[in-house]
Amino acid sequence: MDRSEFRRELAAQLRVDSIRASDAAGSGHPTSSMSAADLMAVLLDGRLRMDAQNPRHPGGDHLIFSKGHASPLYYACLKAMGAIDDEELLSFRKLGSRLEGHPTPVLPWTDVATGSLGQGLPIGVGLALAAARLEQSTATIFVLCGDSEMSEGSIWEAFDHAGHERLDNLVAIVDVNRLGQTGETMHGWKLDVYAERARAFGWEAIEVDGHDVGAIDDAYERALATSGRPAVVLARTVKGRGASEVEDQEGKHGKPLEDPAKAIEELGGERDLRAELARPLGDASPVSNDGRRDVPELPRWELGGEHVATRRAYGEALAALGRARADVVVLDGEVSNSTYSELFRDAHPERYFEMYIAEQQMVAAAVGMQRRGWRPFASTFAAFLTRAYDFVRMAAVSRANLALCGSHAGASIGEDGPSQMGLEDLAAFRAVHSSTVLYPCDANQTASLVERMAELDGIAYMRTHRGKTPVIYEPGEDFPVGGSRVVREGDDVTIVAAGVTLHEALAAAERLAEDGVEARVIDLYSLKPVDAATLRAAADETSGLVTVEDHWPEGGLGDAVLSALAETGAVAPVRKLAVRAMPGSGKPTELMHEAGIDADAIAAAAREFGLPRSQAATARTG
Amino acid sequence: MDRSEFRRELAAQLRVDSIRASDAAGSGHPTSSMSAADLMAVLLDGRLRMDAQNPRHPGGDHLIFSKGHASPLYYACLKAMGAIDDEELLSFRKLGSRLEGHPTPVLPWTDVATGSLGQGLPIGVGLALAAARLEQSTATIFVLCGDSEMSEGSIWEAFDHAGHERLDNLVAIVDVNRLGQTGETMHGWKLDVYAERARAFGWEAIEVDGHDVGAIDDAYERALATSGRPAVVLARTVKGRGASEVEDQEGKHGKPLEDPAKAIEELGGERDLRAELARPLGDASPVSNDGRRDVPELPRWELGGEHVATRRAYGEALAALGRARADVVVLDGEVSNSTYSELFRDAHPERYFEMYIAEQQMVAAAVGMQRRGWRPFASTFAAFLTRAYDFVRMAAVSRANLALCGSHAGASIGEDGPSQMGLEDLAAFRAVHSSTVLYPCDANQTASLVERMAELDGIAYMRTHRGKTPVIYEPGEDFPVGGSRVVREGDDVTIVAAGVTLHEALAAAERLAEDGVEARVIDLYSLKPVDAATLRAAADETSGLVTVEDHWPEGGLGDAVLSALAETGAVAPVRKLAVRAMPGSGKPTELMHEAGIDADAIAAAAREFGLPRSQAATARTG
Repeated sequence: MDRSEFRRELAAQLRVDSIRASDAAGSGHPTSSMSAADLMAVLLDGRLRMDAQNPRHPGGDHLIFSKGHASPLYYACLKAMGAIDDEELLSFRKLGSRLEGHPTPVLPWTDVATGSLGQGLPIGVGLALAAARLEQSTATIFVLCGDSEMSEGSIWEAFDHAGHERLDNLVAIVDVNRLGQTGETMHGWKLDVYAERARAFGWEAIEVDGHDVGAIDDAYERALATSGRPAVVLARTVKGRGASEVEDQEGKHGKPLEDPAKAIEELGGERDLRAELARPLGDASPVSNDGRRDVPELPRWELGGEHVATRRAYGEALAALGRARADVVVLDGEVSNSTYSELFRDAHPERYFEMYIAEQQMVAAAVGMQRRGWRPFASTFAAFLTRAYDFVRMAAVSRANLALCGSHAGASIGEDGPSQMGLEDLAAFRAVHSSTVLYPCDANQTASLVERMAELDGIAYMRTHRGKTPVIYEPGEDFPVGGSRVVREGDDVTIVAAGVTLHEALAAAERLAEDGVEARVIDLYSLKPVDAATLRAAADETSGLVTVEDHWPEGGLGDAVLSALAETGAVAPVRKLAVRAMPGSGKPTELMHEAGIDADAIAAAAREFGLPRSQAATARTG
Repeated sequence: MDRSEFRRELAAQLRVDSIRASDAAGSGHPTSSMSAADLMAVLLDGRLRMDAQNPRHPGGDHLIFSKGHASPLYYACLKAMGAIDDEELLSFRKLGSRLEGHPTPVLPWTDVATGSLGQGLPIGVGLALAAARLEQSTATIFVLCGDSEMSEGSIWEAFDHAGHERLDNLVAIVDVNRLGQTGETMHGWKLDVYAERARAFGWEAIEVDGHDVGAIDDAYERALATSGRPAVVLARTVKGRGASEVEDQEGKHGKPLEDPAKAIEELGGERDLRAELARPLGDASPVSNDGRRDVPELPRWELGGEHVATRRAYGEALAALGRARADVVVLDGEVSNSTYSELFRDAHPERYFEMYIAEQQMVAAAVGMQRRGWRPFASTFAAFLTRAYDFVRMAAVSRANLALCGSHAGASIGEDGPSQMGLEDLAAFRAVHSSTVLYPCDANQTASLVERMAELDGIAYMRTHRGKTPVIYEPGEDFPVGGSRVVREGDDVTIVAAGVTLHEALAAAERLAEDGVEARVIDLYSLKPVDAATLRAAADETSGLVTVEDHWPEGGLGDAVLSALAETGAVAPVRKLAVRAMPGSGKPTELMHEAGIDADAIAAAAREFGLPRSQAATARTG
């Protein structure tokens, strides 16, 4: 058969296999798969450069299904390229299968998890940036989008950035099948609406009949030949194309066909065609960043010297890390002079990426970059990382290794007011699978933890503060992840703090000592994992624990302490100090006082527990 | 002086007052204020219809500073319209002042809090939808945007929706001053880039010199005369305009002027001009929705009848609530047949808003609508509400009253896999100020709690499940917010659960009873506020507590229990069962079993604590 005939046959196979997989699973999205089958058949047949046996080949193209619910089509493609066999195809959505309901990187051909719409394209921007700017790779990044997800703002962040960066190694393919989950999309089959927008964002826009294999091939050729800007192929398609039971009908989203046998017959039955992928260009050796990984010469601050903000120490340590390691890249959301990532930018401009005020795109780009072996550190205000929370959640499903830093945490920022105060970041990041949550209180500790972040698997989060704090640790001290520090010994009461409140805790302990109450002060710089042993010892050996955090009461430091103590049946009561009322503006010290998280409040709370243990026992039973 | 002269003078006053306020505060954003002063002076002089003495007049226009950091200009405007006096202007950013670093609704003229960029415009879409579709109000919604925030995807969600809805009562004014916080924006002064995009999104785009008061007035006239589509005024401006120390210079963002006296002199000194606002049209009576608020006739399900998914009960209760109350409106993110908000849509189509797949815009629109007195309920999958987390955070700063429902929570959704599983929603919503977090386990309980959500202040969140669960409560039973239910008595061990795990807990208790262990089962349907008394009694009266949740271990039900018990010094140990490994796909029962949150796991954990108390004490000390 000729090439067009082969492609039509391959497309029919992809449709049939989408129907078969969904039928075997008893669930899934065959109709959303069938609309894009011709688009994928043409791509697989000579356009996509990929070594199915070595999907991490650095010259290999990437194929991301931003419309992750079209997973039956994706898995049908993997079968057609010889990556999986038919038996595995039919394991779709079953317990233990690598073929999950939406694709995840448990499959080696899958770069990132999708299924939360609007994420594949901005992640593709990250892959494209890495390939073009960091590696001079010839890889093309193909992203299959649905038309429904064009309503996600993150899609337009991706259009904005890719256009601005002139990423001509990025090709978006939009499967405009007109129908969303509940009905017609906002713009239906008006391809010109999407095309006008894409052009206004600096893209080449190519409209095509998404079921004409010749026209599709021409569109890809034009897209790949486009220079100096990214290209989008806007394909008019029919949902459920090829099966009369479901074709172009509402109410057929996300369910197997009722009569799969009939549909398969309409599509000409089962086939076992193999697509010939084009070979990746270049050799399969690892990318350049796998080179230099020296031990960084971290910045050092002297005890008793000037006060230093942890955010500044973050920036200085990051710049040092960049000198020692060639794989570290930094992204920032247009606040690099606040987060101090500008110190890295100035030292290593070729590895710094300005993501402007687009936090979703920032995290997505970091996820894309880490997939190609880079170690991204992305920063903005802790408050504004909440904008990207779904991207962080999905990054964990993607098994991504990346570091995030949220600055300007808490009410202690002062005058800027609550919109700029990260007061929920610890809760949000603790509740991310695979996360590490670090919260340093001084400059040397910050630097040490920044170095460790580059080695961690999963999502590593660091919280930094706006204000300057004293240096209390010697340069070069080690702070293991999952550890803590007893910074003051005492057996009457324990104060557990971190970051800015650690210094308030030390001040409170001084005052308590004047009253004869010896407070133990624990610096809980690692909230996840947490040092349960040290906390349990404190609960055993002192009358009670006061936890204090510049954060809402829920899900932060206090809850981390309680969780660590839970199973032992805590023998001491725990009093949580946290920000309970909505702060306004004011000086940092005023706002911390109002919130009841300063030395005054800590000392008052500690005094309730802080009698010597024998007296306390009498007081409680008396 | 003639009108143009007056406007120029008024603009100079706004600049001078912006400088003075920032100088008095010692911080703030005068340069970002000065660029937009002419735009605001012309708006205040006869274009803005507002009763400064009655800012909630339903015919009054709205003015939202989406670029909330230009708060000095905003407060200078309030002074110019006679809303605040000069003394209060100079209280800017001081403790206790209503003039916070970024505007919040502690000021009655301020509709919503801004300061997280990219939120004011989508909230404006909500106000415009309410005014145009629900009230037939003649109010115009003006939104002042910065050019930096045009990179936020949420801005383009707003452009998309306002264009699609043809909201000609919405006027965006973009202050294109070219400079962001750290340097030039992506598009600098290329007004045509923004104009092309706006037109591609269905808007009228008007380019103007933002310092020519005559041209600005013409632009507003054209914007207000635009029919059938929203309008955007794209104004080329100069940051720091009027003061040589800062004009059009980098590095001058977000700080007071070094020589304010000189700048004020350059601007012609202080003035005390009063702007004459246009009067609102129509009378000041409240909007129509303040009418009918009957007690709803909630749907009823019989004990022992068919199993019902809590998401379905949510939809049925919502439809009933809509019949009883005229102020309830519903929004959904294009999954209304999954969340079952489609039942409201079918019953009350005029109060249903399809927000397509744009969760940020959905929550923002709800925030806008509640400001005009409506009671919005917005729903999507719990997993996808994370997309709008920054909007929820800011809604709390806005003191918004709104209800959110996240469906398809947890690993128990089954085959769709982790991208669709809300496993962090309880942690995220517990850590929202003013939030209520509800988590029903059966249909009648869901209905009762939906009714209560419409009465709550703050952010009310309900979590629902995909799967069907048995009806265990009688129709009409009352479930107070902050309460819990002991659904099975027992004195050996306590199991605390909610939602789908409550049914697993009951099954576990049955098995334990067969072994002679009497488990108390608590339905903790209200996670915030939480029923501490019942939990403390259980901790006193039984050997230990097993908490079980279809959620990550951090920040959810288990942590809510620990927090409630903390201060008493728990007398019993607590064992948290939760989802600890990343789930894949599989049947709901298989995934719950793998996660260790099913009846098997609960019974096993309870057995460790669940000896009759005397035996347990012996076992632990022995």
